[in-house]
Amino acid sequence: MRVTIRDVKVICCAPQKINLVTVKVETSEPGLYGVGCATFAHRHLAVVAAVEKYLKPYLIGRDVSDIEDIWQSIKGMSYWRNGPVLNNALSGVDMALWDIKGKMAGMPLYDLLGGKCRTGVPCYTHAEGTTIEDCVQKVGALKERGYRCIRAQVGGYGGKDMPYQPPEGSFEGCYYDPKAYMAKTIQLFERLRETYGWELELCHDVHERLRPSDAVIFAKDMEKFRLFFLEDCLSPEQSGWFKQIRQHCTTPLAMGELFNNPNEWLNLITEREIDYIRIHLSQIGGITPARKLIALCDAFGIRTAWHGPIDLTPIGHAVNIHLDMASPNFGIQEWADTNTLSEDAGAIALHQIFTGIPEMRDGYLYLNGKPGIGVDIDEKAAAEYPCSEEVVTWDWMLPRLPDGTAVRP
Amino acid sequence: MRVTIRDVKVICCAPQKINLVTVKVETSEPGLYGVGCATFAHRHLAVVAAVEKYLKPYLIGRDVSDIEDIWQSIKGMSYWRNGPVLNNALSGVDMALWDIKGKMAGMPLYDLLGGKCRTGVPCYTHAEGTTIEDCVQKVGALKERGYRCIRAQVGGYGGKDMPYQPPEGSFEGCYYDPKAYMAKTIQLFERLRETYGWELELCHDVHERLRPSDAVIFAKDMEKFRLFFLEDCLSPEQSGWFKQIRQHCTTPLAMGELFNNPNEWLNLITEREIDYIRIHLSQIGGITPARKLIALCDAFGIRTAWHGPIDLTPIGHAVNIHLDMASPNFGIQEWADTNTLSEDAGAIALHQIFTGIPEMRDGYLYLNGKPGIGVDIDEKAAAEYPCSEEVVTWDWMLPRLPDGTAVRP
Amino acid sequence: MRVTIRDVKVICCAPQKINLVTVKVETSEPGLYGVGCATFAHRHLAVVAAVEKYLKPYLIGRDVSDIEDIWQSIKGMSYWRNGPVLNNALSGVDMALWDIKGKMAGMPLYDLLGGKCRTGVPCYTHAEGTTIEDCVQKVGALKERGYRCIRAQVGGYGGKDMPYQPPEGSFEGCYYDPKAYMAKTIQLFERLRETYGWELELCHDVHERLRPSDAVIFAKDMEKFRLFFLEDCLSPEQSGWFKQIRQHCTTPLAMGELFNNPNEWLNLITEREIDYIRIHLSQIGGITPARKLIALCDAFGIRTAWHGPIDLTPIGHAVNIHLDMASPNFGIQEWADTNTLSEDAGAIALHQIFTGIPEMRDGYLYLNGKPGIGVDIDEKAAAEYPCSEEVVTWDWMLPRLPDGTAVRP
Amino acid sequence: MRVTIRDVKVICCAPQKINLVTVKVETSEPGLYGVGCATFAHRHLAVVAAVEKYLKPYLIGRDVSDIEDIWQSIKGMSYWRNGPVLNNALSGVDMALWDIKGKMAGMPLYDLLGGKCRTGVPCYTHAEGTTIEDCVQKVGALKERGYRCIRAQVGGYGGKDMPYQPPEGSFEGCYYDPKAYMAKTIQLFERLRETYGWELELCHDVHERLRPSDAVIFAKDMEKFRLFFLEDCLSPEQSGWFKQIRQHCTTPLAMGELFNNPNEWLNLITEREIDYIRIHLSQIGGITPARKLIALCDAFGIRTAWHGPIDLTPIGHAVNIHLDMASPNFGIQEWADTNTLSEDAGAIALHQIFTGIPEMRDGYLYLNGKPGIGVDIDEKAAAEYPCSEEVVTWDWMLPRLPDGTAVRP
Repeated sequence: MRVTIRDVKVICCAPQKINLVTVKVETSEPGLYGVGCATFAHRHLAVVAAVEKYLKPYLIGRDVSDIEDIWQSIKGMSYWRNGPVLNNALSGVDMALWDIKGKMAGMPLYDLLGGKCRTGVPCYTHAEGTTIEDCVQKVGALKERGYRCIRAQVGGYGGKDMPYQPPEGSFEGCYYDPKAYMAKTIQLFERLRETYGWELELCHDVHERLRPSDAVIFAKDMEKFRLFFLEDCLSPEQSGWFKQIRQHCTTPLAMGELFNNPNEWLNLITEREIDYIRIHLSQIGGITPARKLIALCDAFGIRTAWHGPIDLTPIGHAVNIHLDMASPNFGIQEWADTNTLSEDAGAIALHQIFTGIPEMRDGYLYLNGKPGIGVDIDEKAAAEYPCSEEVVTWDWMLPRLPDGTAVRP
Repeated sequence: MRVTIRDVKVICCAPQKINLVTVKVETSEPGLYGVGCATFAHRHLAVVAAVEKYLKPYLIGRDVSDIEDIWQSIKGMSYWRNGPVLNNALSGVDMALWDIKGKMAGMPLYDLLGGKCRTGVPCYTHAEGTTIEDCVQKVGALKERGYRCIRAQVGGYGGKDMPYQPPEGSFEGCYYDPKAYMAKTIQLFERLRETYGWELELCHDVHERLRPSDAVIFAKDMEKFRLFFLEDCLSPEQSGWFKQIRQHCTTPLAMGELFNNPNEWLNLITEREIDYIRIHLSQIGGITPARKLIALCDAFGIRTAWHGPIDLTPIGHAVNIHLDMASPNFGIQEWADTNTLSEDAGAIALHQIFTGIPEMRDGYLYLNGKPGIGVDIDEKAAAEYPCSEEVVTWDWMLPRLPDGTAVRP
Repeated sequence: MRVTIRDVKVICCAPQKINLVTVKVETSEPGLYGVGCATFAHRHLAVVAAVEKYLKPYLIGRDVSDIEDIWQSIKGMSYWRNGPVLNNALSGVDMALWDIKGKMAGMPLYDLLGGKCRTGVPCYTHAEGTTIEDCVQKVGALKERGYRCIRAQVGGYGGKDMPYQPPEGSFEGCYYDPKAYMAKTIQLFERLRETYGWELELCHDVHERLRPSDAVIFAKDMEKFRLFFLEDCLSPEQSGWFKQIRQHCTTPLAMGELFNNPNEWLNLITEREIDYIRIHLSQIGGITPARKLIALCDAFGIRTAWHGPIDLTPIGHAVNIHLDMASPNFGIQEWADTNTLSEDAGAIALHQIFTGIPEMRDGYLYLNGKPGIGVDIDEKAAAEYPCSEEVVTWDWMLPRLPDGTAVRP
Repeated sequence: MRVTIRDVKVICCAPQKINLVTVKVETSEPGLYGVGCATFAHRHLAVVAAVEKYLKPYLIGRDVSDIEDIWQSIKGMSYWRNGPVLNNALSGVDMALWDIKGKMAGMPLYDLLGGKCRTGVPCYTHAEGTTIEDCVQKVGALKERGYRCIRAQVGGYGGKDMPYQPPEGSFEGCYYDPKAYMAKTIQLFERLRETYGWELELCHDVHERLRPSDAVIFAKDMEKFRLFFLEDCLSPEQSGWFKQIRQHCTTPLAMGELFNNPNEWLNLITEREIDYIRIHLSQIGGITPARKLIALCDAFGIRTAWHGPIDLTPIGHAVNIHLDMASPNFGIQEWADTNTLSEDAGAIALHQIFTGIPEMRDGYLYLNGKPGIGVDIDEKAAAEYPCSEEVVTWDWMLPRLPDGTAVRP
């Protein structure tokens, strides 16, 4: 039976005020379709244009089985490539095709990928406090709920609650003081270790907010807290400094949520300059490249910790977990606790739109065992939570140093 | 006087059946505006969405003087970055702001950049033959017209005219045989040197159509023809092989038209593994990053040879030449001879839409000396040559090896 | 439905006087089973012991879906690992489990692996002449039959027909003279290029018969014949010399049929010191590690050319081709022409035992499209061609230099 | 007098419930024979098959004097090589031939190897506690018995007594928690140094139970205890991480008991990334390769610390000590205290089967001074303690992380 692509749709929705993009690939077989995540929340309309105007016309009529050729063809035929818009568009299609393949096989995606090599997927989630004590308390609450590893931040990324006020006439943006941020974060972790001891795993995300020489100092300062890992302490354009961080401390390093080009990760991996690769799957084009990246990392003893933020559909979260289940060199999975069904209106809306969302129990994530990715989208429900055409607020997206310098996060 | 951005427009047109994208930034000062090139011909609607939906709302009201801050802010605030869609959008704005700055200063762009350090800009253009003899003849015709350096290809990229026919049931695409292409190109250059001797400068573009081990062999084989340079003999994902090419031959190497991420060029430059950087300016975000890249290359003795193809507005071509005028380490400029006003309908249309197009005389390119970039766009004329919404034909964009393997060009 | 392993059998047969080892994994589901290749022809009884005595007791009752965990568990639980006997045993099981997975999914193996990315698999086969003219003739005959790439050898590996006679009292073995072998091989390729021109692809296998300094010279000498590749010009213990070969010539290098330990290939790949990886899949443990190795090679622009000798079951050949179909960085496939059904008694016997053997047509290999691997074994037919318990003849297996030195091939 | 090989026998026995494999080479000279260790306890029947079916037919009739040629011939003639099964088989033969050579010369093996360069061989043995206090006590008891260097572990390898219980439905295996293991081991060594001060030499064996990034941290943490060495802190597939450990601490590193392929050790030695080579002699093929490895290590200042576990015959232990006696760059010898004759049934059985077992006195090991290896096996006694055909229990052989991930030890 030759099954071909009949239609490609893009479904946008924002149940939690974040623009989510889902691609749905329909096939020549009635009722057989797949869904994929193409969420680049901050530039979603460019992704929509890419899928609808360029990928859809190419895809209609192609055999759904030939995922590798479709991926390679799409990747190359824009000539310029490896960027976030086109990679997300490609990811939406790629994941949907793997979803279809799983359904055709009658197997969950992880079984297609070689089968599970663990029975649950350890995860971490975020505790973000406005003050140190607020964060300490939130860590405690998450610990109570079963999390065994928690990412702790105070004042958002880079410490927004610092006393500094920019002078009149300053550029618009989110001002922060790197030195104040470093000092306060160290205080935070002192309090966390005092309060919760050394068994709770902790991590921290610099979110590319430090200049290289500060990053080297900060990574060394944080060594004593025995983090599970320190995340994104350099921007992708400054990865050449990892070598120096490695010389000075054993702090485990996680990197990569901003990557979208193989030239960003190849040397970091082969030189073993990081411990965890944290790529955002849709930002590199989906499951097809992720499988290869996992294998590359495995050869060098580097573990995976896929990016699992709030700006990701439950489909994307589930794909992360399928890969985690099947990867010998899986490390840990980031999990947006907001995915959990609760009394929160956003969470309720999310669960109205998406069915089959993975669940967290006792610090482990679990899939639902259905064929393919196992998460579906209700298009009617999605239509009730349309995306806003307004540009998302800038807050953490336009960070500035006290003197006004724009910092690429 | 504080001049601010009043509006940002995107103007699309296709006078030569190629989708060109121009960004026009209008200011609070009546009659003061700038234009920039944002042409990603193969994905133009994604660029349009990026400019209109995301950059425009951020830009309105900002001071036109603060180009560096605007560039850094836009670059960082999509969080994911360094891809062709967003870089082109940014480039359109960046070039337009430099155009405005030049107009405000009453100086051509090159004067703002430090002033001219040469009086004309040597260029090369393309001779593409369907057969060897056809190409030999076309080289002669271009030589007659004053070109001193000519890029010669036979059968397009990769040799499409090879005898091979893919078997039935094969994937759609543009089949070519790398070995046949290599052999025929060597024959071509033998004929060219026989016919035109050794004073005419020749170059050749592999267009990333060889696998690494073939690229090494081919670069060595071509050494004897004393090319001006051999272009793009590897894909950006395989730049690690330049080291080996360097060991085997002195063929000058040009690289970079596909680059859009600093991690693609940094090591090539610091290791001196190429001779010419050939980046497409709008693909890295315009003039602001190009100035820094020129300085970086200069430190390592590498010269510039900006990408100047047909899928570029005359604005983009002019920007290339402004940079060439002001760069001590300028090498050569690629020039689309189709920009030349002629009896060709496409060229006539181009000149109806764009005014102030640079001119080629005796192998040198010349600007018009007007303030700013010096090229303008007539919006009404542009509207008469609208872009097609149809996806461009696949031909050279979906190359395949004889067995059907898709090759990322 | 939980499907578990019910039994693990080893089936030995020698239809072509070569000891072939097949592993058959039977499941809890009546009629559902898989087959895998575990052929280490020269030490087959050690493999049989490993499967029957150690793997079988561990495997019974395990879920057939969990291939990755089963592979990792078996790999580690002998503590010592990465050797040919245990890797072959593991391969037999691994391939059988992938066969089962394909059957459960109703898909050919290549579809499980991501889908085909080419429509036919280019291959090469062997022309072995006793004299130069004999080899030239055989190359012609294979060309007539459709082969587009042919491996040419004269006098077997290392040139057995040299005039040299070892003195009385010498060690038993297969004497050869490296210098005579080098000289005669160069003569052979001169004749081949004279006779068949430059379009026919040629390759040659040193079979690790040269000492490193001779290998460097020989690889450079062979450069002028523009081989498709030169194979195994160093022993795995001397891979450190590839760096020097790379400095002196652009001869494409294929390596790896003897590898069984990641430490043998990791640096060769990351340093791009070879062009083709030629591993024997069962010697590294089957499909599970091969998938990862393909991805590793892809990141570095290295292509696959899996070992496909006569000492391989048709199951193993088919697995090679499934991987070829699904790998973007596939290069070429070695093919034992003796698999072709003919009037030869061995070939007829092979086809009585194994059904679904891949076919060569016009230089390309084709699978039969059945779910899983698509090749089956008839146990009764196999029993009619039992393995010999006699040790295989030494001939090429105990090579000696003229002075009697044993050479590890 | 030309002495040839008349027969090759394999003798299996399990006096201590561990499957030991001894090879006996009988010669044409009545009463002249040699014995060697070929113990790969976990896969002994594969070794038996290799010796009986493949090595024996080749060896009969060969001159016992030509050990080097026999070694090279056997190594190469299986074509695939360097694995644990075939290396053990080869080792059994190789050691037996050296035993014969010693007997023919009337000299202990160490005299053949150049003569003793020390008068006793310092050794260490194992203290394994179920709790920290239990281990502290056992260290004390061994110290009392004369040991000057003791390897201390708590909860076996990786800390089996951790509180963690895998969830229902988990894979079978030996679960451990790397972080708990690291923390508890640090506590153990704090107690050991408090209790016994700094004169007692201590070492610790990670047994490849840590992932690379944890190994780096742990090696640094352990620096303060001034270990004699830290053993096997990485798996052989991840040796590339030793470089990083070296940057962070001066903890002396021992490595190699799992090695069986020169590509595993060559770079570690030439880069001086370890301090002690701890290879298991039979796993690399016996005395012949060990002599060369000693010389290689000596050139780089690396000392020997041969693997001397319980799964080794007394013949293997004696060979270790012969090499220790004659090596200028000997470091220390691991010794299984269970070899010591005591009231333990297993030890009594061992001494009934093997005569001439080396003795430990006051922290030093001593040989018996007899020609050859000096240890003999009583075949009748051996037959009374047959090997079990049941597969050995998995316990430490199938380690799993808390989430179920199989870890290659």
